[in-house]
Amino acid sequence: MNMVYFDHNSTTALKSEVLKTMLPFMTERHGNPNSRHMFGRNARDAVEHARAQVANAVGAQASQVVFTAGGTEANNFAVSGVAGNLAHGQILTSAVEHPCITRPALAMQHRGWHALNINVNADCKLDMHHLHNLLAAPTNLVSVMLANNETGVIQDVAAISELARQYKAYMHTDAVQALGKIPVSFSDIGVHAMTLSSHKIGGPLGAGALVLDKRVDIQPLLYGGGQEKGLRSGTENVAAIVGFGTACELAIQNLGHFAKHTQTLRDRLEDGLASMKAVIFGESAQRLPNTSFFAFANESGEVIEGETLVTALDKAGFAVASGSACSSDSTEPSHVLLAMGIDPDVARGAVRVSFSASNTIEQVEAFLKALAQEVSRIRQMTAIAA
Amino acid sequence: MNMVYFDHNSTTALKSEVLKTMLPFMTERHGNPNSRHMFGRNARDAVEHARAQVANAVGAQASQVVFTAGGTEANNFAVSGVAGNLAHGQILTSAVEHPCITRPALAMQHRGWHALNINVNADCKLDMHHLHNLLAAPTNLVSVMLANNETGVIQDVAAISELARQYKAYMHTDAVQALGKIPVSFSDIGVHAMTLSSHKIGGPLGAGALVLDKRVDIQPLLYGGGQEKGLRSGTENVAAIVGFGTACELAIQNLGHFAKHTQTLRDRLEDGLASMKAVIFGESAQRLPNTSFFAFANESGEVIEGETLVTALDKAGFAVASGSACSSDSTEPSHVLLAMGIDPDVARGAVRVSFSASNTIEQVEAFLKALAQEVSRIRQMTAIAA
Repeated sequence: MNMVYFDHNSTTALKSEVLKTMLPFMTERHGNPNSRHMFGRNARDAVEHARAQVANAVGAQASQVVFTAGGTEANNFAVSGVAGNLAHGQILTSAVEHPCITRPALAMQHRGWHALNINVNADCKLDMHHLHNLLAAPTNLVSVMLANNETGVIQDVAAISELARQYKAYMHTDAVQALGKIPVSFSDIGVHAMTLSSHKIGGPLGAGALVLDKRVDIQPLLYGGGQEKGLRSGTENVAAIVGFGTACELAIQNLGHFAKHTQTLRDRLEDGLASMKAVIFGESAQRLPNTSFFAFANESGEVIEGETLVTALDKAGFAVASGSACSSDSTEPSHVLLAMGIDPDVARGAVRVSFSASNTIEQVEAFLKALAQEVSRIRQMTAIAA
Repeated sequence: MNMVYFDHNSTTALKSEVLKTMLPFMTERHGNPNSRHMFGRNARDAVEHARAQVANAVGAQASQVVFTAGGTEANNFAVSGVAGNLAHGQILTSAVEHPCITRPALAMQHRGWHALNINVNADCKLDMHHLHNLLAAPTNLVSVMLANNETGVIQDVAAISELARQYKAYMHTDAVQALGKIPVSFSDIGVHAMTLSSHKIGGPLGAGALVLDKRVDIQPLLYGGGQEKGLRSGTENVAAIVGFGTACELAIQNLGHFAKHTQTLRDRLEDGLASMKAVIFGESAQRLPNTSFFAFANESGEVIEGETLVTALDKAGFAVASGSACSSDSTEPSHVLLAMGIDPDVARGAVRVSFSASNTIEQVEAFLKALAQEVSRIRQMTAIAA
């Protein structure tokens, strides 16, 4: 069976053009960029070329890009690195951040900092009033994601940055899900630090970046050989970094097409979902064009479990997610939906579809057909069991 | 010009058999191992297969392997993770550890722990008497590498572990340089934790591991989605992990040949070096078979700078290192040689040759010829300048 992949927010396939630029660094052009000989210098040149490509994709300077092994590391680095270099104060994170922001913040709490959540409304948008109130206490860092991985809802990070700066707090944004799907500009949104990841945009796993205002005094997370100007030690993953650079360049070139194409697919999907009376989370907010997060709850309040639907759809040939991939092995309802005030039972029904430019309208039509069948079948089974 | 690569302790080429096992996971078999659908389950199976391969290479159980993005991360994790979960005490590291052990230990010092160096003797071997004395104060962790990256000198980690355990300290060893060059057994040497790296054994960059006794309560370095049983969050780098697994399997298969072949090359090299009156560091200690670390100092005490020789040899077609690659952009003499009591001027002359099984005796002969020419040329130039 030819599986259809609709889980691109979790990880998306490496683009063949990207792999092509990586392969020389996995074969004859091996070398440690810290070595002085020819192999080392070639590797260094490749890393610096990729640094410029990544910077260019987000309107930053190459010298502002610190390479990491991925988005999780960059987010941990931002939280513990920025707050860790300041006197104990508050770390404010939105209630819908990825756990790789909120959990390092909680770990800092054990070391004397205070980690607090900023509320969101029913549409997943940050409660600016709550942020304003929280900023009354001395705050080291505010971290709010540019776009949510589950709902796709886009935050007004420029306005949040402006408020944070008024209170002399550093501002970080996790732009992992936004990159390649909507325009992202490091300077325009006024943040001090921004996280990027390679494998969400058709680059390889193993590369990410923290884009960083050089005036921010940050503590390394990884100490050692002093790579990345002492900010991130460890031999640079040359091939992955090269691939990340290429993927950034392609993502920017293809941004218009990606947005238009996936929006068309999403519109068709959500027309179908509406006719099936699905709840679509964050529907009325501005969202990433490729993401739809929904659940089925009938009039009598019976919800189809997201896990059940994901398993049924997998058997029917469609790969979709129930909440974020990272929490897929958990049966807890999505913390994002709970923060939006969604009933926990409805939240347990959540299923996420996330498209890439490689998906087609025919796949969406076939998916809607399979979905209708599975929903009907599961409801019948539940009715018999009850 | 066809460059000869003699810098395998810095990074060694990805084996073609390894790349072959990785490529499916960089093309059609993409997927996040945390997803429940078919793509996710396939990726999970591949990661778990690799985990067994890595465990098997060091006589450990698969459940003891925690994957990281590399050796630097695993070493940082070991130091800050083990000590960070204990009351403030001492962290003892040998004076010849890689900076990715000593620098995180120093960072812990700012948080209330004490970081102290254990002396080594002129042969780079740990001073057991000094360790014994240091252990009189409450000690959280002792970290001593299995084999030194610069000199290749092998420590008696089993004896060090035994002593550390007598004093209820946890014992960690950095086995990055030992793996694939000498037999490494996690259980036989009695350590609580051991660091491994993929790209030093013909695997890709981007993968490493901390092999960990499950009784050790360790704090994560990277928080987030809860991967690796909550010990190391971040989407698993599936292709790199698969490559690391294959590389481990091959390294164990080829260990006998590697040792015999590189020792033959090293013996020939050092015969030549002896006739050129080079100083060979750690020569009388047990060393990795592939590594030679040396300098040229004449009767009047004039030393040829290592950097000068590396640059000259690079032009002549040979890639070698001056001290460890990570510190190649530094002009400080090697901290390893200083800890061994080597005169700083002599230490500045240090050049490292590290072989792999792909190197040949003809390359060594050609190298000795080029080396003799360059040494003679540089000495003449220095004499003219003086």
